[in-house]
Order: sequence, then C-alpha cells, then structure tokens
Amino acid sequence: MRDWLKSLGHEYIVTDDKEGPSSEFQKHIKDADVLISTPFHPTYLTKEIMDTAKNLKIAVTAGVGSDHVDLNAANERKITVAEVTGSNVVSVAEHVVMTILTLVRNYQPSHEMITSGNWQVSNVARDCFDLEGKVVGTIGAGRIGYRVLQRLKPFDCKELLYYDYAELPAEANKAVGARRVEDLNEFLSQCDVITVNAPLHEGTRNLINKDTLKHVKKGAWIVNTARGAICNAEDIAAAVQSGQISGYGGDVWNVQPAPKDHPWRDMQGPRGRGNNMTPHMSGTSLDAQARYAAGTKEILDNFFHGKPQTPANVIVENGQYATKAYGQRK
Amino acid sequence: MRDWLKSLGHEYIVTDDKEGPSSEFQKHIKDADVLISTPFHPTYLTKEIMDTAKNLKIAVTAGVGSDHVDLNAANERKITVAEVTGSNVVSVAEHVVMTILTLVRNYQPSHEMITSGNWQVSNVARDCFDLEGKVVGTIGAGRIGYRVLQRLKPFDCKELLYYDYAELPAEANKAVGARRVEDLNEFLSQCDVITVNAPLHEGTRNLINKDTLKHVKKGAWIVNTARGAICNAEDIAAAVQSGQISGYGGDVWNVQPAPKDHPWRDMQGPRGRGNNMTPHMSGTSLDAQARYAAGTKEILDNFFHGKPQTPANVIVENGQYATKAYGQRK
Repeated sequence: MRDWLKSLGHEYIVTDDKEGPSSEFQKHIKDADVLISTPFHPTYLTKEIMDTAKNLKIAVTAGVGSDHVDLNAANERKITVAEVTGSNVVSVAEHVVMTILTLVRNYQPSHEMITSGNWQVSNVARDCFDLEGKVVGTIGAGRIGYRVLQRLKPFDCKELLYYDYAELPAEANKAVGARRVEDLNEFLSQCDVITVNAPLHEGTRNLINKDTLKHVKKGAWIVNTARGAICNAEDIAAAVQSGQISGYGGDVWNVQPAPKDHPWRDMQGPRGRGNNMTPHMSGTSLDAQARYAAGTKEILDNFFHGKPQTPANVIVENGQYATKAYGQRK
Repeated sequence: MRDWLKSLGHEYIVTDDKEGPSSEFQKHIKDADVLISTPFHPTYLTKEIMDTAKNLKIAVTAGVGSDHVDLNAANERKITVAEVTGSNVVSVAEHVVMTILTLVRNYQPSHEMITSGNWQVSNVARDCFDLEGKVVGTIGAGRIGYRVLQRLKPFDCKELLYYDYAELPAEANKAVGARRVEDLNEFLSQCDVITVNAPLHEGTRNLINKDTLKHVKKGAWIVNTARGAICNAEDIAAAVQSGQISGYGGDVWNVQPAPKDHPWRDMQGPRGRGNNMTPHMSGTSLDAQARYAAGTKEILDNFFHGKPQTPANVIVENGQYATKAYGQRK
C-alpha cells in the first residue's frame, strides 16, 4: 500500500496513537485528504474531529461496519464514507457457527479441564449438548445471517428461524428451509440458540436486555458477532452468571478495545460454562485481510482517478446516505 | 436402569473403583453375568480378568468403540461383545467440525486473550484463517467421517478428500462432492485440514507419526476424535510445538484418563496456538447419553429374553467376529 501510494505522489501516515488532541491521529487528520481505519480497533471519527479535518474527502473503512464514523456529520460536510462490503461475510459466518458449536458442546470448560491436569468427563458432559435437534434463530438474515443458515443446514437442527424486516426471497429460503418470525419476543421464546447478525442502528441498539431476555428460553445460548451494543453488557453477564442462559459468545463489544473490567471478560455460568468471547477478530482472518487490502486499494484507486465507487461499498456520498446493500441476499 | 433391572430380579452393581485385584470391579466381575462399561473412562476387560469372570456372558459398551475389550479373548470364551452403534455419530461429527473451526480460526488463544485482560487483535489474527478455500480430508469416510463431510459441504472448501478402503457409493458421494485419494502420503500432502474418523486396529495404530508427518503440509491442522493411538502422542506434540503443523485437536487419548504429564495436555505452538484438546466427551453429550441408555437397555432386554441383537450392535458373538457395520454409509 505504501509503495503504491508513494508511486502516485501521496504521503501515507500510519499510526495507532489516536487518543486525545495531541495524538498523531488528531495532528495529521487536519491535513489529510483520506482516512483509512478498521472496524476492529476503530478510530472514532467524530463531528468535532471532522471540524478540524478541513481537507478530508473520504473516510475508508478497511473492512465492514462504519458506525465509528458520525455519518450525519459526514453527510453535512460531504465527506464520502466507504467500506469493503462483503469482504468478511464468510469469515464472520464461520465464527458464528464455531461459537454456536463451542457453546452448545461446552468446549471451553472441557479444554480447561485438560490444561489444568484434570479428567472428570461427567463434570463437563452435563453441560454438553448436540446442535442436532435444536431450534436456531438469527436476528438478521442478510449477507452474514443467511450464510450462517446455509452452514447450519446439514446439522439437522429442529428448525431454523429468522427475525428480519422482510421475508427471504423464495429461492434463497428454499435452500435453507428457514421460517420467519415477525414478533421479536415470540422469536426469542422459540430459539435454543440465538445468533445476532444485524447492523447496529437505533432499532437494534440494546435489543437484548433484561426485559427481552425474559422471553428467551431458559438455558438458551446467544451468539453476537454483529455489534456489541445490540446486547446489554450487564444484563447478558447477569443472565450467564445466574444460569438463566447457558452461555454467550462472540467477538464484538460495546467499547473496543474492551476495558479490563468489562463484564464479558470474566463472566461464567455454573461449572465455568458459557463464556466464549474473543476480541473483535472474526472478520480479520488472514484470508479476510487479503480481501480488505484489495478492496481498500480499489476504493482509493477509484477516488484518485475520479471513477465511480462500487455502489455496495458506499455508505454516504455527496451529502446523502447511499442505498446500502444491507439486507440484499446472496 | 436400576429399577428396571431390579424389577426383572437382577442385581445391579455400579462402581468406578476398577484398578487392581482388590477393586470393586475385579471383585464383582467374578460373579457377574453382564458387564456394562463406557468407552470414555473405560474398564479394560483383559484376558486375565476374563479368566476370573466365570459367569460373564455379555460385555456391553454403553456407547461406541469396544477396543478396551480383548476381543480375541472374548471370542475364545464365547462372550458376546455389543455396543450401541450409531448412538454418537452425530455428536462426534459435530465435535469434529467444531474442532476444525476452532483450530483454523485460532479460537483458543483469542479467548485466553480476553480472560487474561488483554486486547491485541493482530497477535491472534495472524494465526486465524477461513475454512473456506481450504482442502479438508478425512481418514475414514464411514458413519462419522461421512457426516463430517456433509456438515463441511456448505463451507465452500476448496476440496473435500477422503482416504478409505473403498469408494463412497455414487449417490452418497454426489451429495458431498468428495474425492478419494488411495495413497496415504499423497492424501496427507494435499490436505490443509486432516480429520481422523477411522476405527483403531493394527492398520491404523500409530498411523500419524514422525515419518508420515513428513508428508503433511507445513501449517496443516489435524483433528482426531477417533482413537488416540492412531496418532503418535510425542510426534504430534513435537510437530505442534515446532510449528510444523499449526495445531492438533480432538478428544481421544492413547490412555484414558490421560496422565497429568501427557504431552497433549500442555503442548502449544508459536503464540500459544494449536492445542484444542478436550477429555473424551464428544460422544457423551446429554443428547447422546439418552441414546446410549436407550440402546443399552435394548441390548440387555434382548439378552435377557433370548431375542436376537440388532446386527449392527454386535462386535463378537458365539466365538466369532460379527460382520461389523463399520464403513456402511449413512
């Protein structure tokens, strides 16, 4: 990337010093035409910082998910916000299936039994179930949620459900055989496993909280690889610890990096079960990183040469929200 | 079980004290007509112990896998050996897919980063890959191996391979699209992920050792949920530690319970990667346990009433190896 940008006559500054007014980020953003950031350890591009960024024309997310950018403020300033749509959908869908299996099969306490030198199979087997025969539901059946359903199909779940604003196209639904449930609480009450695959917006923020958790089946498992703030951190931790739900896993946090005392770091249910959290990494496999780099380069190349962007990559442009491809199937 | 046996006029003795000549097991086996054991924490039924078990007529494995019984000695004594065939095949296949995903996506070090209070995504992302686009091969495409292939199908692997003594039936193979490789070393050299789903016998004992590991792709992952002795413990641990393979996971051990100093307990590759071991539990989910109990009861009911056993459940009977269903597809 550096050599390519240099060959085009641009200056390329890389930093992870981005907190506070004297940080490298806030110093250089004043002159920058282009900002590249990632959704994993995000650089929050606020209205106040945009006010100092007089030259900024485009903010590129080298990945998927641009909620670390104040999109309304970007619109007002006609700053383009673009991301590499689709580059991580498979990676995240794989992480979801992995996390469902590790929770349902009680992997984590079982592995720790081995490394701690013990062997009491019955102590971990009592929290180990098969995914076969369970009801699994996704909140959001878009590009990630649908890929999760595809991968779950041969596991012979009792039923696959989805909660979304629209029906899946008939052809797509025929391939996975899922049933839409329109009412959230009704959806929650039917699932043994709930997976969240929806974007963060005012309709999904704090969607899973102590009130909606009352509708979740006792002993269900919840997996969230979408955005941390969709689930209430304290309410989830309390539900895991009390055993109301059997576990929670995923890789997204309401603040990233998560503070050392974030309740999702050390929450545990009975017998040490039910915490399968990782740092925000599902979309950052080496395979996905290669796709991000290629996609970011394409967005920059379009920008430098005045070529139109791939529509699905554009979040806001020319002071308007672009039609976002979210929800488009396959 | 106890109430049912009592109602039939039998005495039912349960013990996990089974080591040494003064153990409860060795004391009571002298009078027992029936022995029920599990493959997870097995009671080794040796020739010497059979010599003391003058009344023993049937040894039932409440699960699948009866290699803890000396089958030749049982044949000589016309002791029937039966197991609950098929009761755990889905459970084990799920454990295999889970372990493949946790290894390829580098789950374990990522989770430990969270519980230890850290957050350096790049340190774990550098060992995280997608399963999509990888070559996955199974040693054994029988009832478990085939179910693994079925579950891997929607992950869009580059290729699914299998090493077995025969071709899959055309119909079964069409559903998963796998290719048979007849030569072991050729098979090993093509796989990014190798999963072992074969029974333990003289042809598979120590199959993966330092010599055959030379043919395995550098950085491959190996998953073994079949029997521990199929893989050489020291050679695998050395290959993980050197980084020659990226990881090893599964739940079977050459001795069970594994001794505290077994090399698979604490082996780790570079950056803490590559150990996804659990105690022998994959087939002992609560869902599988319900199937074992029902199957064991059925075997005993047949025995008590002189009814024929379900052929697939019989390992040896009337002094002969029964035709074992191993290798039968679906």
